[in-house]
Amino acid sequence: MATIWTSRYASRLQRLSRSEIRELLRIATQPGVISFAGGLPAPEAFPMQEIRRATQKVLDEAGTKALQYSTTEGYEPLRELIARHTLRYGIAARPSNVLITSGSQQALDLLGKLFLERGDTVLVEDPTYLGAMQAFRAYGVEFLSVPVDHDGIRIERLEEALKAKRPKLLYLLPNFQNPSGVTMSEARRQEVVDLAARLDLPIVEDDPYGQLRYEGDHLAPLFVLDGELERDRHSGDPIRGTHVVYTSTFSKLLAPGLRVGWILAPEEVITQLVLVKQGTDLHTSTLTQAVAYETCREGFLDRHVRVIRKLYAERRAVMLAALERHMPESVQWTRPAGGLFLWITLPFELDSRHVLEVALRRGVAFVPGGAFHASGGGSYTMRLNFSYCEPAQIEEGIERLAEAVRECLVDSTLDALPRRSGAAEPPEGGIEVRS
Amino acid sequence: MATIWTSRYASRLQRLSRSEIRELLRIATQPGVISFAGGLPAPEAFPMQEIRRATQKVLDEAGTKALQYSTTEGYEPLRELIARHTLRYGIAARPSNVLITSGSQQALDLLGKLFLERGDTVLVEDPTYLGAMQAFRAYGVEFLSVPVDHDGIRIERLEEALKAKRPKLLYLLPNFQNPSGVTMSEARRQEVVDLAARLDLPIVEDDPYGQLRYEGDHLAPLFVLDGELERDRHSGDPIRGTHVVYTSTFSKLLAPGLRVGWILAPEEVITQLVLVKQGTDLHTSTLTQAVAYETCREGFLDRHVRVIRKLYAERRAVMLAALERHMPESVQWTRPAGGLFLWITLPFELDSRHVLEVALRRGVAFVPGGAFHASGGGSYTMRLNFSYCEPAQIEEGIERLAEAVRECLVDSTLDALPRRSGAAEPPEGGIEVRS
Repeated sequence: MATIWTSRYASRLQRLSRSEIRELLRIATQPGVISFAGGLPAPEAFPMQEIRRATQKVLDEAGTKALQYSTTEGYEPLRELIARHTLRYGIAARPSNVLITSGSQQALDLLGKLFLERGDTVLVEDPTYLGAMQAFRAYGVEFLSVPVDHDGIRIERLEEALKAKRPKLLYLLPNFQNPSGVTMSEARRQEVVDLAARLDLPIVEDDPYGQLRYEGDHLAPLFVLDGELERDRHSGDPIRGTHVVYTSTFSKLLAPGLRVGWILAPEEVITQLVLVKQGTDLHTSTLTQAVAYETCREGFLDRHVRVIRKLYAERRAVMLAALERHMPESVQWTRPAGGLFLWITLPFELDSRHVLEVALRRGVAFVPGGAFHASGGGSYTMRLNFSYCEPAQIEEGIERLAEAVRECLVDSTLDALPRRSGAAEPPEGGIEVRS
Repeated sequence: MATIWTSRYASRLQRLSRSEIRELLRIATQPGVISFAGGLPAPEAFPMQEIRRATQKVLDEAGTKALQYSTTEGYEPLRELIARHTLRYGIAARPSNVLITSGSQQALDLLGKLFLERGDTVLVEDPTYLGAMQAFRAYGVEFLSVPVDHDGIRIERLEEALKAKRPKLLYLLPNFQNPSGVTMSEARRQEVVDLAARLDLPIVEDDPYGQLRYEGDHLAPLFVLDGELERDRHSGDPIRGTHVVYTSTFSKLLAPGLRVGWILAPEEVITQLVLVKQGTDLHTSTLTQAVAYETCREGFLDRHVRVIRKLYAERRAVMLAALERHMPESVQWTRPAGGLFLWITLPFELDSRHVLEVALRRGVAFVPGGAFHASGGGSYTMRLNFSYCEPAQIEEGIERLAEAVRECLVDSTLDALPRRSGAAEPPEGGIEVRS
């Protein structure tokens, strides 16, 4: 039934469409379906006992304070803990540089609300995180996308893009990027930061998975490299946040249902973000903030991160081995050094949305890659999550998926043999695969 | 230090200013200060034992599910509970008409994001809830304000305003309005709904306190009256949400730190709001939703509402009696039938911001009324909260406040005697007081 509401939606929202990922989460939860579709952390990785104990302690000791209104900036001990914890990853931030958010999705929304307006351009990696596009699109922006390869965003393409158009923000995921699993190399990081300094470019660095590294060394965040460029004249301390604001979350370290994330930014930006957050949800749940703090304190977070790394490293290895074993030779994939996702490049003539239909009939789900491309393309790509399913399921699921791909390959050869000859040049949307 | 961020804030946010209420909450939390400033529910009203029990049950029984990602619409049993519970207040909604939000502040933000864009006008009551103005202002809107009297919004002034300008939304708080404590009469409600039907006006009905009534009978929400106008041709059921969407919260019924509220709207609007919420914070905390559900179920919410009503009715009575006893004759106030707030009208020559300075020196805080007036004015008004302080503190605080007012009255008589002669006509921003 049409009501008076239909004609009154804000025009900047007309391009909002239901997230494919969220829709797929529905299909993928049907019994018998092995799902590589979601971005769900493994429930076995939730520190249930510690969260139970922390919750009880919070309710017993903080009592009504844990359930009362609290300040927009966030629970002070948690801001301090985040400032201390991130120091171990090279980030020297003060508690006053930390804003607690309702998950890192809200971090993106608040940054969008503060900086973006209709007609602005946001430069994103190609492919990029769907949720960031959803968050920013609500403020009426256009996207300019720059392809990534196995070392992250391609600098020469970035420079070209910046000559054509000056974006309001650059949105980058340097570690084990969602969806591709690709990590920006040390050299590229430095080049990006130098470029930002030269052209005065503001960067949003999204780092939900940075601590979930399964091989190789931790690389300095853009936030840190940017800070090294300039030092405080009085204290000699590096100045953080000159060109980069940073966001991360407890969703993959503790549990996503808490909805606790954070932004690191210069104090002046935090002050503005606090105003924006006041009008948005007043503050993040007092209870879940206190529970996150009580669970993480006294070194538990560091110990727990090691447990998760071990769990996910195994699942990644199982998935990579299964792909090797079962996939046709024409299929390629990334080998992420961390995070939750890997990225598959099918032969260009295959449409991964069609592969999904076939795969769902065989009881396995993934996300077709097209949705992650801000400028279209990538119809022959797909994102696989390796954190959620147990190893035996991963093995079984990849076998089913390989069968689905084979079935589609046969169909496509039968249907489209004459059209294949020209497909030597990869169309837009892929990642140059070196392995 | 100025960074590159400063010059890049979205222009629609330039008028965002730090909320006076939130700033005052800081001052008001200093030891020794009796605060009537916040909108805090009494911590004694939090059902701690039940929340503790519910939390333990959720973590024991739902386990990891209570900490995993969940759907944007909200926890299904909670949506059902809200649909059942609101039925007792005359609202026939289905679970599919319910969206769970991160407090009712988020409900306002999501409605703003869905409907409002730069240049739109929102019609509000004068005075109105500061947080709504903060939420809507972020989308670049202007406000058109229509004064309230003791029966709610003044219809003849509303009709006048609508002749001059057609707003995108009407934002109304019919029950025990924040800040004035005024309740819209039954006749006015019908007139507002008839007007909405005649002119196709969309109304956001904000009802955070509706169940906290201490005298008189429950009045049908606009959402219900609007539904009575039209019935489904097949089922004969009233059609809800034709002109009114409704929002409420558990903040005052259970505890605000959970950050759980809801919107009731036609399914088509809920579908759009879900898309908006996906990009905003994915979903409200799985844990706090499950805790809210487990606490409220099996009739507990109804029983608990009766306990809160008794507690707050007493505090309201104590505050009204103390005002009667201590305040100078030239001071007037509203006598709310429910909610958390009452509204004081000082002699017009007094500036309540100045009174606040004097009052803080005497150890009592309130919110100056000017902030609640979208179009300015009301410098001689103030909002008092009566839910948070215990009766003895209320008595003591009102005595201090009365002394502060007296001190200011003496000063103003000394300073400004010659200027007072023309002040017989009340300036804009007051409420016509009949009592």
